[in-house]
Amino acid sequence: MSQLYIYNTLSRTKEVFAPINPPFVGMYVCGPTVYNDVHLGNCRTFVSFDLIYRYLLFSGYKVRYVRNITDAGHLEGDRDEGDDKFTKRARLEQLEPMEIVQKYTLGFHDVMKVLNTLPPSIEPTATGHICEQLEMIKTILEAGYAYIVNGSVYFDVERFSSVFDYGALTNRKREELFENTRELHGQDEKRGRLDFALWIKAKPETLMQWPSPWGWGFPGWHIECSAMSKKYLGETFDIHGGGMDLQATHHTNEIAQSKACCKDEPVKYWMHTNMLTVNGTRMSKSAGNGFLPQELFSGTHALLEKAYHPMTVRFFMLQTHYRSTLDFSNDALQASEKGLQRLWNAVNALSKIKPGKQHHNSIDQLDTMCKAAMNDDFNSPVLIATLFEHTALINAAAEGKAELSQDNLNTLKHVYNQYMVEVLGLTPQALKTEYSRALQSAMNLLLQIRTDAKTQRHFELSDHIRKNLEAGGIRIQDHKDGSTWDVM
Amino acid sequence: MSQLYIYNTLSRTKEVFAPINPPFVGMYVCGPTVYNDVHLGNCRTFVSFDLIYRYLLFSGYKVRYVRNITDAGHLEGDRDEGDDKFTKRARLEQLEPMEIVQKYTLGFHDVMKVLNTLPPSIEPTATGHICEQLEMIKTILEAGYAYIVNGSVYFDVERFSSVFDYGALTNRKREELFENTRELHGQDEKRGRLDFALWIKAKPETLMQWPSPWGWGFPGWHIECSAMSKKYLGETFDIHGGGMDLQATHHTNEIAQSKACCKDEPVKYWMHTNMLTVNGTRMSKSAGNGFLPQELFSGTHALLEKAYHPMTVRFFMLQTHYRSTLDFSNDALQASEKGLQRLWNAVNALSKIKPGKQHHNSIDQLDTMCKAAMNDDFNSPVLIATLFEHTALINAAAEGKAELSQDNLNTLKHVYNQYMVEVLGLTPQALKTEYSRALQSAMNLLLQIRTDAKTQRHFELSDHIRKNLEAGGIRIQDHKDGSTWDVM
Repeated sequence: MSQLYIYNTLSRTKEVFAPINPPFVGMYVCGPTVYNDVHLGNCRTFVSFDLIYRYLLFSGYKVRYVRNITDAGHLEGDRDEGDDKFTKRARLEQLEPMEIVQKYTLGFHDVMKVLNTLPPSIEPTATGHICEQLEMIKTILEAGYAYIVNGSVYFDVERFSSVFDYGALTNRKREELFENTRELHGQDEKRGRLDFALWIKAKPETLMQWPSPWGWGFPGWHIECSAMSKKYLGETFDIHGGGMDLQATHHTNEIAQSKACCKDEPVKYWMHTNMLTVNGTRMSKSAGNGFLPQELFSGTHALLEKAYHPMTVRFFMLQTHYRSTLDFSNDALQASEKGLQRLWNAVNALSKIKPGKQHHNSIDQLDTMCKAAMNDDFNSPVLIATLFEHTALINAAAEGKAELSQDNLNTLKHVYNQYMVEVLGLTPQALKTEYSRALQSAMNLLLQIRTDAKTQRHFELSDHIRKNLEAGGIRIQDHKDGSTWDVM
Repeated sequence: MSQLYIYNTLSRTKEVFAPINPPFVGMYVCGPTVYNDVHLGNCRTFVSFDLIYRYLLFSGYKVRYVRNITDAGHLEGDRDEGDDKFTKRARLEQLEPMEIVQKYTLGFHDVMKVLNTLPPSIEPTATGHICEQLEMIKTILEAGYAYIVNGSVYFDVERFSSVFDYGALTNRKREELFENTRELHGQDEKRGRLDFALWIKAKPETLMQWPSPWGWGFPGWHIECSAMSKKYLGETFDIHGGGMDLQATHHTNEIAQSKACCKDEPVKYWMHTNMLTVNGTRMSKSAGNGFLPQELFSGTHALLEKAYHPMTVRFFMLQTHYRSTLDFSNDALQASEKGLQRLWNAVNALSKIKPGKQHHNSIDQLDTMCKAAMNDDFNSPVLIATLFEHTALINAAAEGKAELSQDNLNTLKHVYNQYMVEVLGLTPQALKTEYSRALQSAMNLLLQIRTDAKTQRHFELSDHIRKNLEAGGIRIQDHKDGSTWDVM
């Protein structure tokens, strides 16, 4: 498979990826609402799109990757109900809403960094695009797809549905969506059950509000993504992604807003990441199984047997395809930890194996197989399985039990490095921050002292060194021609 | 001196610090224009205000620290001339202006982090506050202190000067300022030489522009700080800081805008950091002596003899008072490197000294002396000198040549820890990232092997260990009761 195929939620099929204006690719991903700590489900989404971003770059595309920060306008209920999340949190923490935004944006960036995700090209904020949102709402009003009630502006889904297919993204008829939506209260300002807010009139106590042609208020949650994707990627762009929980409401409404404003289909490929579960159960605060990324990295949640390194977590996430449910369990995480170590050991072994005479033709196909996996809708689990397939042979060669030709070795080094570091975004450095110059020199000395001890048959000392290092997290492996070490 | 005194640029005297609404303190500092790598002069300013922020927190104040990001509206010339810096850079790097903003904001945050500055409470952006700036310009127009010409809005300094003192911050008469300003060109839209833009009409090719009551355009550079400080700290707040290069134009115009809008003096204490020089010459690109922070940390500039650790750089900066010129030289940096190591050695020694009988009364005054230094307009060089004064005594006690009572030891530990870590923001961790668990266990083993070797009079081995570790950057020090080690 030499062409990249992407599963498009809109068509419910895998389609050949043909960007609108190659080699440029515009990609928009719905980012976090920064009113509390980023949750693991979000991390999974952003790690998935980091893989996608990396593979598009690796494939030679020039990608403008826009991931927004929602720092205003997100109400507690997705159906325009309840308090603004920032105002509520600001009251709770006795801070100004923008202090809440700063605190959780910094925390989010820290988690993204330790998970080794590349920063997006642009990270626009909702508060940074009030003007753009107002302009878009005006256009929608002028086009007749919205109405004003008492200082708020609502999108008219019925009117929109008379021209366009409102339920296209979820493949549902408007009537069906209508049936699934609760009836309007008597005091509701909306005309139709499916209508949603573009602009919400502020209450006097609302902490975040801006002037508008309809009075002081704040934008609805959905309009920011339409306005910002249009500003930075144009009226029609290539890829729009997010968690699948956003599909039915947020993304459906984004499409409606953009079409009402600009007529065209705004996005060519819609991509959605699946949910995550914990021991088979959906993760939720009320179920008590909702640990945070930082708890996973430090092992400080009751459900966690130990701390898991961010690179273990990243690798674990990528061992499941982004469209499948990802199930967290200690067993699965520990299997990933071992698996990742096995891959790095193979990479390290490659630099030490002396070329032999035997040539394995199968290795000539390795790069093609890796590409084929990723070209099949970014199938990272198949890619990882392909890399695993050769570790047994590499280990055998390292132990002198098999041979690899010079060409074989060159191919393996090149392919493993490209796919593990560039595409999967795994950093050996991050796994081994302890490999400093000082540690290197201390270990060189110790290994030398230990080798001398063994030569002089002082096995007590050599065992003593091995055991004490193991207690400190350093594993020594003895080979025919010397010893190597590793931080576990 | 039990009260905090701050040098106020406005009054040109040290004044007792009396916040408007204690224990709350509002502090605004002009942040970077993120169109290129942050330069060292800016770093010095932000490290200085980090010290000030830390000391205010240490003194029990509840500080809201706002430091903005200028991501629009900054023209090449400070007098409303030339291209918008972002548009120009975006053309050069063939990126969208907000990609430029993202790239250099991330780079700026990285440098701030390695210099161990605390993140501000809020980090607002100019593009994020277009609405607020438009509102403020409208108010200034309504008050009669601005005029519209051909889609641009200018501040009327002459009209302002008939009511308020325009030159107060620099203690210059308007006439004098007038003399120092170049004459208007025939085609200039401004009525008066000192007038400045509040809103600038966009050219068709301007990449960053927004709609306004006066047509599409972008805000002038000065209005963002007035609008954002007002939004997050109120019409009158405690401290406004920045580099002294901002005093004559940017800050003078900020005061004019705020007074035209709200009448009151906006800021109680204006604070300005001084410039930096390199080997006595002003740092500038054209002089070829303008190295970047990253070059300083990596030692990759022709003028630098070696790499300097970010904590060395921070300590070096704090060894000069923020209102004095800071001169960079290899000699001075290396002196700071040694000085900082001496202080940490003293801190480390404190935990090992056994209490003696002799009590030094002078040490009872240490905390008072440190406070007095910082209360005198944040005089960090005097604070550091005070800390240095006791290192000789601590070292003597560590070598068994002097005695320190239990009370003395408690005081020293407490005071050194508080002032070095909390107030000066120096991190022993950052100096010694190599002190990992793995290195610790390897070193424990090596020191034990070396001690055994010495006991058995195998001096060849013990010397071999010392020399090899030194080559790896680890220094061993032998004491009466054992050896310690340190990463150099």
